Amino acid sequence: MKKSQFVIIGLGRFGSSLAKELVELGYEVLGVDKDEEAVQDLSQVLTHAVVAEATDEDVLRSIGVRNFDCGVVAIGDDIQASILTTILLKDLGVKKVVAKAMTELHGRVLEKIGVDRVVYPERDMGIRVAHQLVSPNLLDYIELSKDYTIAELTVPKCLNGKSLQELNPRGRFGCSIVAINKPQGVIIAPVATEVLAEKDVMVIIGTNEGIEQFEDTIIR
Amino acid sequence: MKKSQFVIIGLGRFGSSLAKELVELGYEVLGVDKDEEAVQDLSQVLTHAVVAEATDEDVLRSIGVRNFDCGVVAIGDDIQASILTTILLKDLGVKKVVAKAMTELHGRVLEKIGVDRVVYPERDMGIRVAHQLVSPNLLDYIELSKDYTIAELTVPKCLNGKSLQELNPRGRFGCSIVAINKPQGVIIAPVATEVLAEKDVMVIIGTNEGIEQFEDTIIR
Amino acid sequence: MKKSQFVIIGLGRFGSSLAKELVELGYEVLGVDKDEEAVQDLSQVLTHAVVAEATDEDVLRSIGVRNFDCGVVAIGDDIQASILTTILLKDLGVKKVVAKAMTELHGRVLEKIGVDRVVYPERDMGIRVAHQLVSPNLLDYIELSKDYTIAELTVPKCLNGKSLQELNPRGRFGCSIVAINKPQGVIIAPVATEVLAEKDVMVIIGTNEGIEQFEDTIIR
Amino acid sequence: MKKSQFVIIGLGRFGSSLAKELVELGYEVLGVDKDEEAVQDLSQVLTHAVVAEATDEDVLRSIGVRNFDCGVVAIGDDIQASILTTILLKDLGVKKVVAKAMTELHGRVLEKIGVDRVVYPERDMGIRVAHQLVSPNLLDYIELSKDYTIAELTVPKCLNGKSLQELNPRGRFGCSIVAINKPQGVIIAPVATEVLAEKDVMVIIGTNEGIEQFEDTIIR
Amino acid sequence: MKKSQFVIIGLGRFGSSLAKELVELGYEVLGVDKDEEAVQDLSQVLTHAVVAEATDEDVLRSIGVRNFDCGVVAIGDDIQASILTTILLKDLGVKKVVAKAMTELHGRVLEKIGVDRVVYPERDMGIRVAHQLVSPNLLDYIELSKDYTIAELTVPKCLNGKSLQELNPRGRFGCSIVAINKPQGVIIAPVATEVLAEKDVMVIIGTNEGIEQFEDTIIR
Amino acid sequence: MKKSQFVIIGLGRFGSSLAKELVELGYEVLGVDKDEEAVQDLSQVLTHAVVAEATDEDVLRSIGVRNFDCGVVAIGDDIQASILTTILLKDLGVKKVVAKAMTELHGRVLEKIGVDRVVYPERDMGIRVAHQLVSPNLLDYIELSKDYTIAELTVPKCLNGKSLQELNPRGRFGCSIVAINKPQGVIIAPVATEVLAEKDVMVIIGTNEGIEQFEDTIIR
Amino acid sequence: MKKSQFVIIGLGRFGSSLAKELVELGYEVLGVDKDEEAVQDLSQVLTHAVVAEATDEDVLRSIGVRNFDCGVVAIGDDIQASILTTILLKDLGVKKVVAKAMTELHGRVLEKIGVDRVVYPERDMGIRVAHQLVSPNLLDYIELSKDYTIAELTVPKCLNGKSLQELNPRGRFGCSIVAINKPQGVIIAPVATEVLAEKDVMVIIGTNEGIEQFEDTIIR
Amino acid sequence: MKKSQFVIIGLGRFGSSLAKELVELGYEVLGVDKDEEAVQDLSQVLTHAVVAEATDEDVLRSIGVRNFDCGVVAIGDDIQASILTTILLKDLGVKKVVAKAMTELHGRVLEKIGVDRVVYPERDMGIRVAHQLVSPNLLDYIELSKDYTIAELTVPKCLNGKSLQELNPRGRFGCSIVAINKPQGVIIAPVATEVLAEKDVMVIIGTNEGIEQFEDTIIR
Repeated sequence: MKKSQFVIIGLGRFGSSLAKELVELGYEVLGVDKDEEAVQDLSQVLTHAVVAEATDEDVLRSIGVRNFDCGVVAIGDDIQASILTTILLKDLGVKKVVAKAMTELHGRVLEKIGVDRVVYPERDMGIRVAHQLVSPNLLDYIELSKDYTIAELTVPKCLNGKSLQELNPRGRFGCSIVAINKPQGVIIAPVATEVLAEKDVMVIIGTNEGIEQFEDTIIR
Repeated sequence: MKKSQFVIIGLGRFGSSLAKELVELGYEVLGVDKDEEAVQDLSQVLTHAVVAEATDEDVLRSIGVRNFDCGVVAIGDDIQASILTTILLKDLGVKKVVAKAMTELHGRVLEKIGVDRVVYPERDMGIRVAHQLVSPNLLDYIELSKDYTIAELTVPKCLNGKSLQELNPRGRFGCSIVAINKPQGVIIAPVATEVLAEKDVMVIIGTNEGIEQFEDTIIR
Repeated sequence: MKKSQFVIIGLGRFGSSLAKELVELGYEVLGVDKDEEAVQDLSQVLTHAVVAEATDEDVLRSIGVRNFDCGVVAIGDDIQASILTTILLKDLGVKKVVAKAMTELHGRVLEKIGVDRVVYPERDMGIRVAHQLVSPNLLDYIELSKDYTIAELTVPKCLNGKSLQELNPRGRFGCSIVAINKPQGVIIAPVATEVLAEKDVMVIIGTNEGIEQFEDTIIR
Repeated sequence: MKKSQFVIIGLGRFGSSLAKELVELGYEVLGVDKDEEAVQDLSQVLTHAVVAEATDEDVLRSIGVRNFDCGVVAIGDDIQASILTTILLKDLGVKKVVAKAMTELHGRVLEKIGVDRVVYPERDMGIRVAHQLVSPNLLDYIELSKDYTIAELTVPKCLNGKSLQELNPRGRFGCSIVAINKPQGVIIAPVATEVLAEKDVMVIIGTNEGIEQFEDTIIR
Repeated sequence: MKKSQFVIIGLGRFGSSLAKELVELGYEVLGVDKDEEAVQDLSQVLTHAVVAEATDEDVLRSIGVRNFDCGVVAIGDDIQASILTTILLKDLGVKKVVAKAMTELHGRVLEKIGVDRVVYPERDMGIRVAHQLVSPNLLDYIELSKDYTIAELTVPKCLNGKSLQELNPRGRFGCSIVAINKPQGVIIAPVATEVLAEKDVMVIIGTNEGIEQFEDTIIR
Repeated sequence: MKKSQFVIIGLGRFGSSLAKELVELGYEVLGVDKDEEAVQDLSQVLTHAVVAEATDEDVLRSIGVRNFDCGVVAIGDDIQASILTTILLKDLGVKKVVAKAMTELHGRVLEKIGVDRVVYPERDMGIRVAHQLVSPNLLDYIELSKDYTIAELTVPKCLNGKSLQELNPRGRFGCSIVAINKPQGVIIAPVATEVLAEKDVMVIIGTNEGIEQFEDTIIR
Repeated sequence: MKKSQFVIIGLGRFGSSLAKELVELGYEVLGVDKDEEAVQDLSQVLTHAVVAEATDEDVLRSIGVRNFDCGVVAIGDDIQASILTTILLKDLGVKKVVAKAMTELHGRVLEKIGVDRVVYPERDMGIRVAHQLVSPNLLDYIELSKDYTIAELTVPKCLNGKSLQELNPRGRFGCSIVAINKPQGVIIAPVATEVLAEKDVMVIIGTNEGIEQFEDTIIR
Repeated sequence: MKKSQFVIIGLGRFGSSLAKELVELGYEVLGVDKDEEAVQDLSQVLTHAVVAEATDEDVLRSIGVRNFDCGVVAIGDDIQASILTTILLKDLGVKKVVAKAMTELHGRVLEKIGVDRVVYPERDMGIRVAHQLVSPNLLDYIELSKDYTIAELTVPKCLNGKSLQELNPRGRFGCSIVAINKPQGVIIAPVATEVLAEKDVMVIIGTNEGIEQFEDTIIR
């Protein structure tokens, strides 16, 4: 299957990070920004990088955006440019258009004009960091549903040498430890006799309430 | 145990999202910004919100930042203000200081002056969105180690009615489905006869390679 | 039948002229502009006039825009404000929203976000003035179809004392004179013996080509 | 007869629309603007387009404005430039000079310095749109005199299948339907047995009062 | 006879000097400037001084400019404001309007809109200083006609003790010394035996050529 | 005798007028301004004109200012540049330096740093115009001393046909008419029987009081 | 003897440091700056501190600068303000005026207008730091003449326990150690048997060459 | 021993003075500034001078800063640039980094990121000038300790012809005169019979109190 090709418009902190990661993952990426310096900084990394004013239909046409499978409008602070560029990408036939919204209102406009997905990087990251701040052992997490979460937690000193049996998270909090990352490797679906060591990382699934109790009771 | 109190300096998109989430999670939050409008927008939501110039030591002292357990310097675009505020928070005795870095160089300075944690929201979010763009069924993921990932994937139409047994991800790709989110509720550690339905969400653990093959072979 | 109520956002040259004419025609009009001077200039003329930032949802709500039958977004030079205000008016439930577009692209966005009518005042006026410039006797006109026009023409000196019969526009050019404006009053559907005087104004219907020939042959 | 040649100074929204329409109508047009981008956008369309500072007498002389039959000063927002350019065009011997006024006061100065015609595009368009807003079926109109108007109205659903006889606008409102635009073509001076269909467009002449009553009684 | 009243609009270097001299000469002067500081500096000196935007008809009306005999538009650097204010003063019925022109073109517009007198202070002063620079003894002069000048000259050392008879300017250069300013007083129409002393000032009338020869031959 | 050479620094309205007049009077003039346009406008008129930053010692040296007999610092609005340029001209050995002062304080500094003459064009011109405004017949004048003035007055209609004898200005007001400019030529020291005609111009010497009485009694 | 009183105009980094040190030394100081924040920062420290525009003669008069013995013009970056303020201080009768110069040219003007002392803080400090950079043990120094210097040097490890006799700086380099600062106190004119300890500070007088050799030979 | 090489970043008044002095002292200096003019002014004087943005790691690398023994960050007014440049110099391996601090807070950050020495030129110069202002005979001084000072004083008229014996500073004030700079040369450790002459300069060591008393009693 032919790999998707991406055009990223706006090479600020979010856009350039996205572009570089896509290249890392093995995709072809065209980066576009009206700022020459931003383009130059990425010219070594991306497949192509061009200085262009993305609100100009002729410009977008001339760089052939319609041949790309996916366009990302990652324009930083100019809501107008973001909207105009987005509508141009849609009109020029880019199959999938993803756009970064600065405000809720901006997001609403983007949806009305037919964007396939709106992302709010700063807002989402703010939420993610908030969770990490309040749970010092929390490394990362996935919100599975309104009630269920998968959490990646560092094993604290006080659990050193304890087996899963002893902890009994399922019995006490309805949570399940589904993986342990140890220096010697990752153990998927660990058995009950598996013993934790400080600095191991465990992945736990359960209700928010259950995990919170687990953290409060066992870990802290 | 007394709950931590947070002071968030800089109420832009990242800072305000972080502050609101912390309040949602039940913590006391003091928001600080030099822009009156930014403060007013959050004054109903946060415990306290004040208009103040955070690079002025006397100002920080007068709003009592030293009584807070954790300070977050979420200043948006002014590297100088970010650095000066950070050093003031440290000097005034704030126990834990987290700061948002705009560039790698900025991050290096923040580390040198003793910040406890540097976050790069736009960069991290760029990476996260990149992964989601290339795996259309990927909702979220945790990088467990260099090789192992936990991925939250939408069940596509082609898997509708298939049991885990039939899919046999462990046998074929060394991956393990550890949870399924169905309309009727989340199933943790599902049994092999469990049947998937379109739009269910499954959580799978495995090597990056295994999950990629699983996606390429089974899902697409 | 209750008369419609209008809210006009943006009181520049176009918006203020529109607002004043609506008041003249007997309608209630609320004028909104973020510029205090613009509002003050119209405060004697309009039913209400307020200084407000129309891109702020709370502001629009507080001035009760949802009670208006028709909203006109006549914002002058700020495409972003125009788009955001338009979507807010639609979302707040204004029944009919008309918006002024600055460019074709701007117009396309306005249509996508559900505006009921897009107007291009400068473009339309440019076209209108062009027609008047090339036909020195042309006062005004309506483009009935691609081929047919109604033109309002000054009667030149050379036609002074001529009867419609003599001119015979229908016979010679397929055009029909449907009204004559004379100092003593307007004659609708004038008879063939009606005599033209210099400075009378005649209204003629016909094909573009017919009227052009009429002008070239008879008038000049 | 030799066709007039036009020089248009100021290629903003009004000026460029005017210039393009004149070209469309078959005239030679020289476009002048001090902004390079504005000129470039029109360089394909106009006969000639030059970047020049129109308040400089030598510049105007060098581009030969005195050879043009008509000059239009369509400068957008700079009253001073508009006035100075206008007086230069007059002094250099341009036969007819038309100028766009931004305010009444600006218009007064233009008249004093001898301009042949002052146009107020935004003001005029504001008035025109106001009329269309209050009469939803009104497409366009010509103000024949203080009392008489020619209106172009869409035929609404409720008149579908009605003959002019049945409507009897002349008998009831003193108005006369002088043309009907039907999909199959325009009928000039339609007979009384002519039948209207929804979406037809009719042209009606009458007093303002009469047409208003017609609209209120028959159409709505 | 009632003394004239003056309104001076623009209190820069020229306007304030003019206003102060008029007060010195015993006239009532109203000073107007949009800059508060400029007005305050003169508020002690002038009869009245107000901060006002002179391009606003209502403002001019409210300060009663139409009651003044003479209006001087001494606006410094804003050609547009100068033109608009001038036309307002004329329209409001100020009997005599004098305006300062910045360029020839500006002067032409001022004349077209009916100003009674245009002054070019910097240009005129440039000419006057030029003459003084090339004739080191020249204090002041009046150009009587294209050929004749009245010059006020310092008596140089070399003429000390010389009588008019000896100098014989009339016989040698066709010039006439019509006054001598001596420490003891001014002598009008001095007799031929009158003796000059160094530092006296003499007033001489003659042709430009004659005075020039007189200066070159006798004085230097 | 070799003619003086002038360097004029600052080619604004005053400086350029001064420079052009000096050229007219037959002198060599080098014009200097940092604004390219100002220089280009005068490049045809002056002996030399260069674009240069006059506050840079090396620049002044390289254009050889020390070879000029007289330097005029006619810089318009930048007091600092005026002072620095002046001191450089003096230090580089320009024999005579004349400088334009914007304020009294500026004038005081210029004198302290050794300027040979300070001129205040706008202030002086303000005074001159004030006198002309209050004496409608006054064309020009020289202040001979605190008490004595030479005035150039238009002969008004009411004096048409009057002889000097009849007027008897010397007997009645102690004033002396020393010249009359008539269409046929200038009469110096006119005899008592000389008859005035309307529109003639007379030159009168006397005390301020005497001339004022003369104007009030005879002329008005 | 009555102590001098100082007025410091300009409270930037140099001015405020100077003002604070003078207060420390027991003198009365009035601080003046046009920036309110700069004044507020020092209002607790200085005898008086006022916000004022120092280029305004009336302002300086009203704050009574003529009663001060010494005025320091420490204005940071505005050469014009520095010059105008300086001349005002001199004219108002301040006995001694010291001014900070930004450039050599600025310094020349200050001297011409009669300043008592010109200081160049950044230039002088640059020179001082240069000397310290090239002699790592050099703490401070005084240039006694072109050839002689007094240097304050840290005693390095290699001289620990050495007596002055052993070093014999007078015999070997013609330098004389005139004081040693030891933890127990300063020894003036130390005897030859005095022993140096690491971290002591010695004061040495000699020729530049002698001290340089001493440093190169003995210390490094 | 190989001489140190210096790179000076920031060529303002402090930086350029420092750079020039180092060259004068015989060292190699590379000057760096982002302002082209600043670089050009020093290009004749310094070993090398380049225009470069010092906050860009690649730039610093390309000009080889890591080969320099000492880097001085003398950036004038941009705290952010100062901090970022400093950390880059440290990271690139410059052995010794000296930086100019604008405020105390800036200085604190510089110390935290590992700068070897922080200098405050304006603050230090302010202190130095303060001392000179209050002791009119004081030329320069070194603060030896909290209590002891070395002062360089001009010999006033009243001490002319006095021997050191007569003055007896040691006996009366505990101070020692360790050198006298006379027109004929510097006398180190002068004998008691040495006689002072007006305008000689003497170097005195003693307690602050002693020197102050000496000045008050003997000198004034």
